[in-house]
Amino acid sequence: MDIAQALTVAHEASASVRGTTSPNPPVGAVILDAQGDLAGVGATAPPGGPHAEVAALATAGTRAIGGTAVVTLEPCNHYGRTGPCSKALVDAGINRVFYANQDPFPQAAGGAEFLKARGVETHFLNTPIRALTPWLAATRLGRPHVTLKFAATVDGFAAASDGSSQWITGEQARSFVHSDRSKRDAIVVGTGTALADNPSLTARTADGLYAHQPRRVVIGSREIPETSNLATSGFERYSGISEALKALWDTGCRDILIEGGPTLAASALQLGVVDQIQAYIAPALLGTGKSIITWPQSTTMDDIHRFETTSVVTLGNDVLMELTRKDQ
Amino acid sequence: MDIAQALTVAHEASASVRGTTSPNPPVGAVILDAQGDLAGVGATAPPGGPHAEVAALATAGTRAIGGTAVVTLEPCNHYGRTGPCSKALVDAGINRVFYANQDPFPQAAGGAEFLKARGVETHFLNTPIRALTPWLAATRLGRPHVTLKFAATVDGFAAASDGSSQWITGEQARSFVHSDRSKRDAIVVGTGTALADNPSLTARTADGLYAHQPRRVVIGSREIPETSNLATSGFERYSGISEALKALWDTGCRDILIEGGPTLAASALQLGVVDQIQAYIAPALLGTGKSIITWPQSTTMDDIHRFETTSVVTLGNDVLMELTRKDQ
Repeated sequence: MDIAQALTVAHEASASVRGTTSPNPPVGAVILDAQGDLAGVGATAPPGGPHAEVAALATAGTRAIGGTAVVTLEPCNHYGRTGPCSKALVDAGINRVFYANQDPFPQAAGGAEFLKARGVETHFLNTPIRALTPWLAATRLGRPHVTLKFAATVDGFAAASDGSSQWITGEQARSFVHSDRSKRDAIVVGTGTALADNPSLTARTADGLYAHQPRRVVIGSREIPETSNLATSGFERYSGISEALKALWDTGCRDILIEGGPTLAASALQLGVVDQIQAYIAPALLGTGKSIITWPQSTTMDDIHRFETTSVVTLGNDVLMELTRKDQ
Repeated sequence: MDIAQALTVAHEASASVRGTTSPNPPVGAVILDAQGDLAGVGATAPPGGPHAEVAALATAGTRAIGGTAVVTLEPCNHYGRTGPCSKALVDAGINRVFYANQDPFPQAAGGAEFLKARGVETHFLNTPIRALTPWLAATRLGRPHVTLKFAATVDGFAAASDGSSQWITGEQARSFVHSDRSKRDAIVVGTGTALADNPSLTARTADGLYAHQPRRVVIGSREIPETSNLATSGFERYSGISEALKALWDTGCRDILIEGGPTLAASALQLGVVDQIQAYIAPALLGTGKSIITWPQSTTMDDIHRFETTSVVTLGNDVLMELTRKDQ
């Protein structure tokens, strides 16, 4: 197995634990033995459990001696709840380490230096790892990474003028949303959406719930009825987005999804905290109706918020455009 | 060369003449000799010139004897400005004919029957040919096939509230629009767009004009200044969409593109004549602004116009979603 193949396996391991590791990053690690054969794969366990490298080394055992580690993030170098991964790699007899991203976390960084100082050949691959993007951005920003999600017709409406509701997107797009929720730390809605849609904000499979459920967060002060789905399953409430971001960061959230409604979307955009947008676009026209965003004032072209298209996925008849903030 | 490969070549020949053949269909034809080797390729010439089969047979010469013809449309069977293609195939000694679509045109149909009656093996492939879709729909509907085109932000706005203008989409999407215009019979706008944007409605390459230019059509009665780009290059005017469709059909148009503005788009949708939609979606948000469609009344979900997504193309940072009417 060559390094590119090993990185693909490590990438998949990263993706498989997304949503379950915060405040730690969802890292994937692969150990190749001295002959270049796959000896172990690991991913970050939930907080308190082993990091990816340690898990991969445990599987590899003595096959790690003289071997190569391929990791999606620079091995950590600090004594937290677990020992440093850089030391574990040296102790296991690893000769070469390839890592896709540098660790931006001041306490954990320095892993590559530690390894080099002990004679381990290290290579920074500088390869984006999709599963790590939110965690890396959050660590740099000092607040959770924010994705704004909406579903709309191709002419930009989330519902008809009279608020009459019906699915805009098809089944495939809706099940994708649930899979996506299962990878987030928290789902956030405004009280307007909580009252109008009575959402449960759970991540559901065809016949039950995903193993990982995001925290359910409501922003605003209007009362949520005790009989509502949210009240039944439990939720957190914050007065505004800034308060929510601070509290969620402090309690370990790194990757959150804002699911509505239009007033909350406008606040998030105006605060400049929207890092990514997921636009589910249905092949339908309404002509007029409820907008995705309730914008408080008129606009000129200078007000345009431009993003970069980082992914386009066709989901049945619908299209998911993923947009990323340009300054990231 | 097998039949599937020959059909691909015929398909490309079809596409290469789109826009230049109306009221005739843009057909492509391939002749394989008795050994199955490529002997000739042809496409429909402008009206009055040879049809695709005749052009392909001319190249093949005597190599057509005992050979195979692969055509995107059933060979015609009538004496119009040119002789029937079915007879030309028989006269050239063709043994087998494969055709992708049946001819829906009453006067021209019967080609397959004619060929069978003369001992030619004929096969209807029933394969959609993108270049023929507008012509086939137009022939069935008895009016030009209508594509509604717009460019918008991901939240559905074509411009800011104050009408301030700037390109919403990027360069790649804009040059795609010009290439697309060069394949249409006519480009249609309302007087509002003609006055506000002073468009030339030409199909432009990076350094000049495409060989084929669509007819320029304005709908509405407001005066267009003599100094405008449209007045300079010349345009046709009709009082409404129905009048335009009738006049354009009668004068040979089969495939037209409505490029704006929002009032004309609403009229076309309400008339039920929008066969296809081209939505160029830019990764930007405006929050509020000028809609794509000026809808005259409020809506309920029952008013939704649902289409099918038939193509999704990424053009730089923008996405082109092509939608087709469900009942087609």
